[in-house]
Amino acid sequence: MFLEKIEGLNDVKKLPERDLVPLADEIRTFLIQHIAKTGGHLASNLGVVDLTIALHRAFDLPKDHIIWDVGHQCYTHKILSGRKNQFQTLRQYKGLSGFPKREEDMVDSFDTGHSSNSISAGMGFVAARNLQHGDDKVVVVIGDGAMTGGIAFEALNNAAMVKGNFIIVLNDNKMSISENVGGMSTQLSKLRTGDFYRGLKRTVYDSLEKVPGVGGPMIRTIRKTKDGLKQLLIPGMFFEEMGITYLGPVDGHNISKLIRTFQEAKKVDGPVLVHAVTTKGKGYDVAMRHPARFHSTGAFDIETGLGKKGKPGYTDVFSTVMKKMGARDEKVVAITAAMEDGTGLKRFHNCYPERFFDVGIAEQHAVTFAAGLAVSGYVPVFAVYSSFLQRGFDEVAQDVCMQNLHVVFAIDRAGLVGNDGPTHHGVFDLAYLTMLPNMTVMAPKNIWELSDMLKFAIAHDGPIALRYPRGEAFDGEKEHRAPIEMGKAELLYQGEKVCLMALGAMVKVAVVAAEQLAAKGMKVTVVNLRFAKPLDYAMIEQMAQSHTHIVTMEDHMIHGGVGVAIADYLKTKEKTDAHIYHVGIGDSFVEQGSVPQLYKECGMDAESVCALVENIWKTP
Amino acid sequence: MFLEKIEGLNDVKKLPERDLVPLADEIRTFLIQHIAKTGGHLASNLGVVDLTIALHRAFDLPKDHIIWDVGHQCYTHKILSGRKNQFQTLRQYKGLSGFPKREEDMVDSFDTGHSSNSISAGMGFVAARNLQHGDDKVVVVIGDGAMTGGIAFEALNNAAMVKGNFIIVLNDNKMSISENVGGMSTQLSKLRTGDFYRGLKRTVYDSLEKVPGVGGPMIRTIRKTKDGLKQLLIPGMFFEEMGITYLGPVDGHNISKLIRTFQEAKKVDGPVLVHAVTTKGKGYDVAMRHPARFHSTGAFDIETGLGKKGKPGYTDVFSTVMKKMGARDEKVVAITAAMEDGTGLKRFHNCYPERFFDVGIAEQHAVTFAAGLAVSGYVPVFAVYSSFLQRGFDEVAQDVCMQNLHVVFAIDRAGLVGNDGPTHHGVFDLAYLTMLPNMTVMAPKNIWELSDMLKFAIAHDGPIALRYPRGEAFDGEKEHRAPIEMGKAELLYQGEKVCLMALGAMVKVAVVAAEQLAAKGMKVTVVNLRFAKPLDYAMIEQMAQSHTHIVTMEDHMIHGGVGVAIADYLKTKEKTDAHIYHVGIGDSFVEQGSVPQLYKECGMDAESVCALVENIWKTP
Repeated sequence: MFLEKIEGLNDVKKLPERDLVPLADEIRTFLIQHIAKTGGHLASNLGVVDLTIALHRAFDLPKDHIIWDVGHQCYTHKILSGRKNQFQTLRQYKGLSGFPKREEDMVDSFDTGHSSNSISAGMGFVAARNLQHGDDKVVVVIGDGAMTGGIAFEALNNAAMVKGNFIIVLNDNKMSISENVGGMSTQLSKLRTGDFYRGLKRTVYDSLEKVPGVGGPMIRTIRKTKDGLKQLLIPGMFFEEMGITYLGPVDGHNISKLIRTFQEAKKVDGPVLVHAVTTKGKGYDVAMRHPARFHSTGAFDIETGLGKKGKPGYTDVFSTVMKKMGARDEKVVAITAAMEDGTGLKRFHNCYPERFFDVGIAEQHAVTFAAGLAVSGYVPVFAVYSSFLQRGFDEVAQDVCMQNLHVVFAIDRAGLVGNDGPTHHGVFDLAYLTMLPNMTVMAPKNIWELSDMLKFAIAHDGPIALRYPRGEAFDGEKEHRAPIEMGKAELLYQGEKVCLMALGAMVKVAVVAAEQLAAKGMKVTVVNLRFAKPLDYAMIEQMAQSHTHIVTMEDHMIHGGVGVAIADYLKTKEKTDAHIYHVGIGDSFVEQGSVPQLYKECGMDAESVCALVENIWKTP
Repeated sequence: MFLEKIEGLNDVKKLPERDLVPLADEIRTFLIQHIAKTGGHLASNLGVVDLTIALHRAFDLPKDHIIWDVGHQCYTHKILSGRKNQFQTLRQYKGLSGFPKREEDMVDSFDTGHSSNSISAGMGFVAARNLQHGDDKVVVVIGDGAMTGGIAFEALNNAAMVKGNFIIVLNDNKMSISENVGGMSTQLSKLRTGDFYRGLKRTVYDSLEKVPGVGGPMIRTIRKTKDGLKQLLIPGMFFEEMGITYLGPVDGHNISKLIRTFQEAKKVDGPVLVHAVTTKGKGYDVAMRHPARFHSTGAFDIETGLGKKGKPGYTDVFSTVMKKMGARDEKVVAITAAMEDGTGLKRFHNCYPERFFDVGIAEQHAVTFAAGLAVSGYVPVFAVYSSFLQRGFDEVAQDVCMQNLHVVFAIDRAGLVGNDGPTHHGVFDLAYLTMLPNMTVMAPKNIWELSDMLKFAIAHDGPIALRYPRGEAFDGEKEHRAPIEMGKAELLYQGEKVCLMALGAMVKVAVVAAEQLAAKGMKVTVVNLRFAKPLDYAMIEQMAQSHTHIVTMEDHMIHGGVGVAIADYLKTKEKTDAHIYHVGIGDSFVEQGSVPQLYKECGMDAESVCALVENIWKTP
């Protein structure tokens, strides 16, 4: 009824202030109903409905700029800027993005997806404004979890470099994706209870001002309560120490108070941090109770909160095997960067709490911390999403590979991830890992091979990675389970003429394509590469000599992937006249959509592979 | 005379304490004399002589572990652990490394080279010790400049995760490589003057304890001096806020005080930060006056401090052109990560101070800050060393390329850098940049082309990088100066049979090789590729069809480089039967040495190329 009135940007400014609270409730209902159908980031979006309304009221959009850190909490922002009618397409192929997109609407100031970079981007906007002598406001909204990422600190530390107003809204929901860790978190939890100290402060000052004799006893009390005293004097000392004005904490669900605080913040000459305390999942009981589960959800039943239970994914298999390996070898330790649930390490954590380390959103630190453990004789397994490991590239190169240390990288969400879109696709890892000396890179074809490869990786010595995709795991080809040997591929089906050489998730596609082709009388060979590095050159040569065509298949950029390496080998070594074709991702970012849709778009589905092979078969 | 007695690890413990100060003086003289001949990191090493002596006295090596952040300040550590006789080979081919190397001596606990990662590595050691119930001490030594790197903060924030003693020595020399920037720096400079506040604290407490009446006036004073009060109560509040005990500041040149402070630090149950204030270049006047120049120096005259003046390097050319471009286009802004001198941006800074940004050691932040400026219509040029840009890989991908923003990456120290060795070689950049959609990558053959390419990059729209090597620039081939066109290579010399296709610094090698070959009657073709992405496929095809052999040449890993991309193109497109050979770096880390030595070792020098071509020419 109020939401009906929101059809375009700044319509929210036309409502009387008393209507904002019911509007927020309607938006929450809207979000729950839509995300229950489309899936998406629920808990974080429910948490910032009031905050977003207050931002759209207090600032002058699109002249002012709001940058959403990570970006998955931008749904209310999209509604308030006139995109509510596109929500049935949320995160779907060609539909509304679940993240800010400048191409979608200019009021999305900066495309985000990875965490902790908003302050840096915002500082760029501020520097540009200053050079232009503009008066537009720049606001970044960053979660407390994202604050632990190194780039956020690099920016905070540097925030005083740019002059003039710069507003950092700290959306403090007391957790990032899993529970928050570290010194910053402790600091924030002290701040949240600041009311107590402010009360105390008033009392103490009042007493001191009224009573002429204070003396020894009071001093002794103050000395004992050092911590309390700090808060009493200056809440937000941490930020003030960095030269950043601190305002708050403010109730992140009180729209009027938020608007007033933002008006205050606009007056500050310099960087100012508004500390807003919010509740993840606000307004939906199930999500408030299980915020991690409702961080990113598929479609679910609103009544029960339960989603459709699919087949187990690779993450589940990894989880089970890690628990076993933990029991078998007490040198095995596990590391996550704030993704205990997502990476499946929860079970390991429960069983071996002293060998489990959640370092927060801090991939660089995670990698080098692992290196330190490896030097000391432990076998760290860092479970991480492919696209997030990009943050630790330098550390993988310098601290792990250069010292040839035995660190295991269990790389989840490799390949195309689907609805999260381009920021989350894990399509660069083969390239940035195989270029590093000493590194070994594997990809399993099915759940059994994931298990075997993880065991192989733990028994190995040196840097080693295994990558596996998001979602349902392939449980076929169980009968093909030759032991994993360093750099050895696996011949699955011997055919003729055409050899499909597939890596990881593409083996399933190859097998399906081979079946369809066989039905049409074309019996092709299928090789499971297993290793992206070192490649099985003996197998490659053998196949190149016994087939007229090689089709390489990988869920990765073609550039820098295994197909190019194979083609280069065949060209430089001149072992064959076999023709070679690459299946994989061309030189562009892949948008959002279901994985099958994206496979099709990229020519990576079984049908596309069949069409390619039929074409080859036809030509003499 | 005291240094003579230092022949092996822990010999320094045998000296009476009164001999340590003269020993320190002797070590400083030793360092100045040796580095004047070999070159090396002088200022930072002179700064930590006393600190290192104190560490070797206070700790039990090799049972305890010292991790040197960045590592270039480890010379005294190497002397005290018995390596003084190898100093004439410092940073030379097959000689003593200028950085800690576990392979060289087990007392070098962790190999370092890039900044800010020591705390993370140290935490790995601590976690391992705890699991083994050991009692060894872990000490990391980190500079104040390195503290601005995001990974250092990720680790500090996470330091409370590991239990038990963990000693972080903050070597505060009031600058990193150039002058320090940011909030942390402000904070440290307040701490350095902490004595004043400690005096004040005593006075205030004394007064309060003695005088029964305090009341209003005192409160009002306290309220006015918020800043002072913070320091008064707890120096090192910033670190204490993170849950890290703070000790200091202590004079980093007072060995006895340092030893006593380290003994104190050992007793702390948990992370403890020892704040040692040192002077870069201590004991050598010229270096104290010009610490940035003596950060990393070639051989020099001790009397005058002057080095041998070589021909101008690419950095000088970049510096000149950037100044011109700044005048021509007020949208051009420049960014450095604590490398104003090293990258040649000092002149731009002097001319256009409001358009120059030094963000500190913070490459991730630098990249995303640039993205924010680019969205706002400016043309940021981020000048950065190739191997340091590895830290910003994710941001280049996510924040720049994915949004197709016009950010110029001026990548210095690309290729083999020489004596700094493997941590500093810039041999991965072509791979990690060309794999990114929307990215353009160039490399100039000589100084004129650097100038033309920088202008081209600034006039371009979209992410674009140019990479150029360290050291003397090539000023030949001036007559070949065809305008830069997107994705177009340049045909330098038309020959027959063999075509050398070279990128960037390798063009000079190709030209020299071609001359030598011509003298022997073999007239080869030389192509300057100019673009690593997009490649000039038309030129490649044309050359492949008109020659029997293609030799690709790049100062980069072969894997992921242009040669493989060219071979893949020729193999998949089947445009030719031409044979192809790659000149570049194989699958291993390249050690230290002069660039000519390393080129030779890698088969990248003119002689190796000639030998290769002669071999080709001979075979029918």
